[in-house]
Amino acid sequence: MSRPRNDTLLRALLREPTPYTPIWIMRQAGRYLPEYNQTRARAGSFLELCRNPDLATEVTLQPLARFALDAAILFSDILTVPDAMGLGLYFSEGEGPRFERPLRDEWEIRNLQVPDPGVHLRYVLDAVGQIRKALANEVPLIGFAGSPFTLACYMIEGRGGTEFLGVKRMLYARPELLHTILDTNARAVASYLNAQIEAGVQAIMLFDTWGGVLSEAAFREFSLRYIEQVLSQVARSGNGLRVPRIVFTKGGGQWLELLAATGAEALGVDWTTDLGNARARVGARVSLQGNLDPAVLLTPVEAIRAEAQTILKSFGDGAGHVFNLGHGVLPQTPPESIGALVDCVHALSRRSS
Amino acid sequence: MSRPRNDTLLRALLREPTPYTPIWIMRQAGRYLPEYNQTRARAGSFLELCRNPDLATEVTLQPLARFALDAAILFSDILTVPDAMGLGLYFSEGEGPRFERPLRDEWEIRNLQVPDPGVHLRYVLDAVGQIRKALANEVPLIGFAGSPFTLACYMIEGRGGTEFLGVKRMLYARPELLHTILDTNARAVASYLNAQIEAGVQAIMLFDTWGGVLSEAAFREFSLRYIEQVLSQVARSGNGLRVPRIVFTKGGGQWLELLAATGAEALGVDWTTDLGNARARVGARVSLQGNLDPAVLLTPVEAIRAEAQTILKSFGDGAGHVFNLGHGVLPQTPPESIGALVDCVHALSRRSS
Repeated sequence: MSRPRNDTLLRALLREPTPYTPIWIMRQAGRYLPEYNQTRARAGSFLELCRNPDLATEVTLQPLARFALDAAILFSDILTVPDAMGLGLYFSEGEGPRFERPLRDEWEIRNLQVPDPGVHLRYVLDAVGQIRKALANEVPLIGFAGSPFTLACYMIEGRGGTEFLGVKRMLYARPELLHTILDTNARAVASYLNAQIEAGVQAIMLFDTWGGVLSEAAFREFSLRYIEQVLSQVARSGNGLRVPRIVFTKGGGQWLELLAATGAEALGVDWTTDLGNARARVGARVSLQGNLDPAVLLTPVEAIRAEAQTILKSFGDGAGHVFNLGHGVLPQTPPESIGALVDCVHALSRRSS
Repeated sequence: MSRPRNDTLLRALLREPTPYTPIWIMRQAGRYLPEYNQTRARAGSFLELCRNPDLATEVTLQPLARFALDAAILFSDILTVPDAMGLGLYFSEGEGPRFERPLRDEWEIRNLQVPDPGVHLRYVLDAVGQIRKALANEVPLIGFAGSPFTLACYMIEGRGGTEFLGVKRMLYARPELLHTILDTNARAVASYLNAQIEAGVQAIMLFDTWGGVLSEAAFREFSLRYIEQVLSQVARSGNGLRVPRIVFTKGGGQWLELLAATGAEALGVDWTTDLGNARARVGARVSLQGNLDPAVLLTPVEAIRAEAQTILKSFGDGAGHVFNLGHGVLPQTPPESIGALVDCVHALSRRSS
């Protein structure tokens, strides 16, 4: 296998020089695109869209048809893994993901099984194969999973949220139970990511969406440790090429040094962290991905350009930056704002040579 | 005027030695206390409770009757200031504070007036006087206000929230309008805090609840700058005694160095920041207040003790620590957990001498 024709993303993640700063957008295949909403309506629901490899391929490619993005990301959801464990994922309109059977009893926790991705997550691997074929190695395909702690948050609470009191009660009162869940999750996530790599993804990203709600001590013990476990069990290459691994703890700007020591090739950075500061702290060891506030894309193009320029300048010259937002794109974002951002990041960062 | 009989809080805020680490709890007069709920029911509503100096005094004192707390904090709300500006504060059950007339038009912003605290916030100053009298200088009374940026969030959105898209749209598209609001807020907050000091509060705290939603560059320009403006306009002493000023930006752990340079005597620290790390960064310049995760108080007493011990150890020996939570106490907290925390912080921190 050879590198994709546009390999700027892979090079930047490995801190190799690139002719310009590559860019992709978290949730680039999503509700801000009218064509996505049409495909989703045809699928019937978000979950059916995830489970149908033809339609998942279709929506994965939609943003690439519009914008000069430097990567595709598999259209899926981090919660497919606990769903495959039998928790019963569903989406209630306007309320985000939920589980029908959140973990309530000790025996449920002790009986949790690592799903076989080849069986229970076959639809994801089929989508990866189809997307790779459709991409014809023009740009790389990014695979992903949720971090063990982030998955545990949903598995215990039954939903997302802001306070995670059920998780924290378990963490402080019954830490051994939480460790049992996290160890199972870590093995499940590693096996799932390895299956994605085998099916063809060329980079992977681990989303630690909720690690930032913890104290530093709890973050180290209950999130970081299991991110390390996942990374130690995930293949470093696929089909003879290195597969860079991106770790993103939202709200984890204080812990970049800890995250840089996990073995990840790159770290996602949210917009609250100054990128130049982040680079000074960990840029010699990892690439950095980010970090425009998604809200900026709701403002006029001149403001978008100014903020993109600020971020590029803050990172400075040299290799190791992948432009992205600091969180997923907002549904109310005008598609033309994404186009303007992609074009201006490319233009402003092009090295004169 | 003399220092209160128990002056450990004031000493710790000024980095003077104390026989033990003082403790108070954000929202210590609140819904977790049955007697508070009774008084609130008598008042009719949260807002009537704030506006009635007799009842505000009553609830301010309630936690001190139960627990060996080292300070009282004025019972009030940060949104009394924009309410005094005419925005019409109200509370809808289960949804938090709202404004009837959020700032929608440019002329409303340009016409915003700094309220005269002696007239429009008389009820707060009356409560301060009554509380001081009732406390008989046993422990100090802390006054407070919202930061100019945090007030602006509510004034523009009309409510609290998590994304603050209206504020961010203005920040990026019409920054001069936001600066107009922030300058008015800063003058209003400074004047309000000076009136509180004149009425008798012995320390003040500025709550920057939402500064942490900004990028570092935006935080500097739109929150930090106006915190500095407030502090430069607030009296450093009242009745011949120094009045220490605590600044708390929730989610601002990355910016402690910036916050330590504002002129504040102490910084609030939320639980995501390791306190020992915070001390190493800024402890030579400011005291630190915090930082137990409020969720810990929902767990068994042994876990509460262990976490309190971890925080005390993390700060280490020496002056300059005020124990507190990293955010307000949760309504579902058992009152006896607060008692256990207060007692164990005192016992564990008592210097052998």
